[in-house]
Amino acid sequence: MLRGSVSLIALACAAAPALAQEPVETEQATFAVETVAEGLGFPWSLAFLPDGGMLVTERDGRLRVIEADGTLREDPVAGLPDDLVVVNQGGLLEVALHPEFADNRLVYFSYSEGTEDANRTALARGRLNADMTALENVEDIFHVNFDKRRGLHFGGRILFEDSDTLLLTLGEGGIYTEEAQNPENHLGTVVRLNDDGSIPEDNPFVGPDGRADEIWTWGHRNVQGIDRNPATGSVWTHEHGARGGDEINILEAGANYGWPEATYGINYDGTVITENRELEGTAQPIWYWNPSIAPAGMAFYTGEAFEHWNGDLFVAALAGQQLQRLEVIDDRVISVEPLLEDMQARFRYVRSGPDGAVYVLTDMPEGQVLRLVPAETEEDE
Amino acid sequence: MLRGSVSLIALACAAAPALAQEPVETEQATFAVETVAEGLGFPWSLAFLPDGGMLVTERDGRLRVIEADGTLREDPVAGLPDDLVVVNQGGLLEVALHPEFADNRLVYFSYSEGTEDANRTALARGRLNADMTALENVEDIFHVNFDKRRGLHFGGRILFEDSDTLLLTLGEGGIYTEEAQNPENHLGTVVRLNDDGSIPEDNPFVGPDGRADEIWTWGHRNVQGIDRNPATGSVWTHEHGARGGDEINILEAGANYGWPEATYGINYDGTVITENRELEGTAQPIWYWNPSIAPAGMAFYTGEAFEHWNGDLFVAALAGQQLQRLEVIDDRVISVEPLLEDMQARFRYVRSGPDGAVYVLTDMPEGQVLRLVPAETEEDE
Repeated sequence: MLRGSVSLIALACAAAPALAQEPVETEQATFAVETVAEGLGFPWSLAFLPDGGMLVTERDGRLRVIEADGTLREDPVAGLPDDLVVVNQGGLLEVALHPEFADNRLVYFSYSEGTEDANRTALARGRLNADMTALENVEDIFHVNFDKRRGLHFGGRILFEDSDTLLLTLGEGGIYTEEAQNPENHLGTVVRLNDDGSIPEDNPFVGPDGRADEIWTWGHRNVQGIDRNPATGSVWTHEHGARGGDEINILEAGANYGWPEATYGINYDGTVITENRELEGTAQPIWYWNPSIAPAGMAFYTGEAFEHWNGDLFVAALAGQQLQRLEVIDDRVISVEPLLEDMQARFRYVRSGPDGAVYVLTDMPEGQVLRLVPAETEEDE
Repeated sequence: MLRGSVSLIALACAAAPALAQEPVETEQATFAVETVAEGLGFPWSLAFLPDGGMLVTERDGRLRVIEADGTLREDPVAGLPDDLVVVNQGGLLEVALHPEFADNRLVYFSYSEGTEDANRTALARGRLNADMTALENVEDIFHVNFDKRRGLHFGGRILFEDSDTLLLTLGEGGIYTEEAQNPENHLGTVVRLNDDGSIPEDNPFVGPDGRADEIWTWGHRNVQGIDRNPATGSVWTHEHGARGGDEINILEAGANYGWPEATYGINYDGTVITENRELEGTAQPIWYWNPSIAPAGMAFYTGEAFEHWNGDLFVAALAGQQLQRLEVIDDRVISVEPLLEDMQARFRYVRSGPDGAVYVLTDMPEGQVLRLVPAETEEDE
């Protein structure tokens, strides 16, 4: 009984340093929660370096290095753009390595650029120098073609399709809802770019019709999760919806995902946005959450350490204060399991680590990198 | 505020008579809960008569009539078989009208026959006489070819495919788990019969190989829900699983649904049944519940009264003490909403009524027929 009580206290105080928690028994795995790093300013994204280290973004505007031995370097990586603006939901967002990073050292990152009154999501890349102290030759390769006020709904997640092309998720700016249905600008879209920022010729809207050539999909609200389903190859995204309207979509080139013309959500004040749950010409979600959980990052688990988790989808939830595991067969969600609810933490991001662990970021001024590792239940528990 | 308090008390005391509850606001509908009938001995099934009345089974062994004006007749319908045995989960189970009932007056019902030490699920039919006081010419048209002890896992739900054939769901008897993988008997199967109980020639196991010719699907645990998805025509069933293993399946002729060789559930004492969640040669569920809810009846909503519920699946839960609404697109569950949780009642069955209402049975010694009808929220609430 004493052990159990200690465990509960440890979970409740998860913001405090801890090397390992007591084993947590769940539906298909027993794991311990380890703290990899802490004291990060709203950590937003994580990328695994070939040497076993990691890059972590702090939304506060710093790119940090965690060495292969687990040491969090005090000094951030130099070289971020001067026009990066930390405003409300904006700041430094995603970091992702080029698939050929081992050869070309290219690091991609998304961020909000501009001012509080005129800002936009941007994508840049630079070469990480050998001692990982700076990004060099940093260049903007994309920015949203719409200046917005306030600092809402930037999207910002990056997925490389392969070495040549990437997808960047975006939002509709929060107060520009209708622009999600206007494909002349990038608000509320997912864009597809070549790795140098140029436009792939096979993008669906390439041509002189006024629709932005970068667009891959549109009609989104605020997409903060993207990953490829390893079982099918399809690309899944999730987006923050209105109340009761957070959803998961499978991306199809050129498709309109309906926001705000069709949604399962209503306004947070209870008023109706639209009566349309389905609408001709718009794609239906394959999953939606009601109540909303505020999904902020997703990853399919591709490791072997947790045998029964392989192929499942993990979603980090802010308001929902959980890591959610969605059991996936082919392109279908067949069950849902909430994890880490006892921590009462907001979760920003989740990654399937090369070591088979599940990495999770907590969304706090003193945020953490946590790691779920396999554990055995004590026989006396 | 006073109105709200009264409403909560009314919901908490739902076993008591009540003509209408305060409106309940849910995700996609606002409804009131009306009591159609009460004082029923573990009501198990409900069939709508062409004249607006209903037949209701009491598991206690009585078939009752609710008249078109809502009156519950005191005297049960006469003519049930003498060998009907009320034991544990057994007794009088499902009632269903032949699709051409208006012409032929044929009523089908399933029940447990035999004794406490040797019983089995049976299916019978008879003609309802003009004044609805008796079933006449009652004949057994099917019974399970395996005598079992105790009174567990009878299945018992009926779905007419059309005027010619029907599906009857069965269970594996609870203590005969392995028999679900033995297609020589009917335990743990869904059988398909002509309306006179004979075997359709196009059943998958017709032939001299020892497999029972009545079998349509096998490898089930205890199927107590079946309905046709109106959007796709596919037949959905749910079954009680082991702990964490309640599942929904789409039936394919001849398919093995894996119990107990593959399951998401574990034993209720926490021990492992199998490591197999998936297994070559067995069909995967399209949904499973963890934690278990004990699903005891399902119906697709086909009415128009609740616009946004059309095409959704409703599941009555015993241990889960809720009516669950599953949002369905094509043959996919895309979200889940629990309803009626405040009632703290076990729900046995749900039907989409010809009047557009949703009918629900509570599983109690003094059980009820409830009806969800559209309501408006009071402006001052």
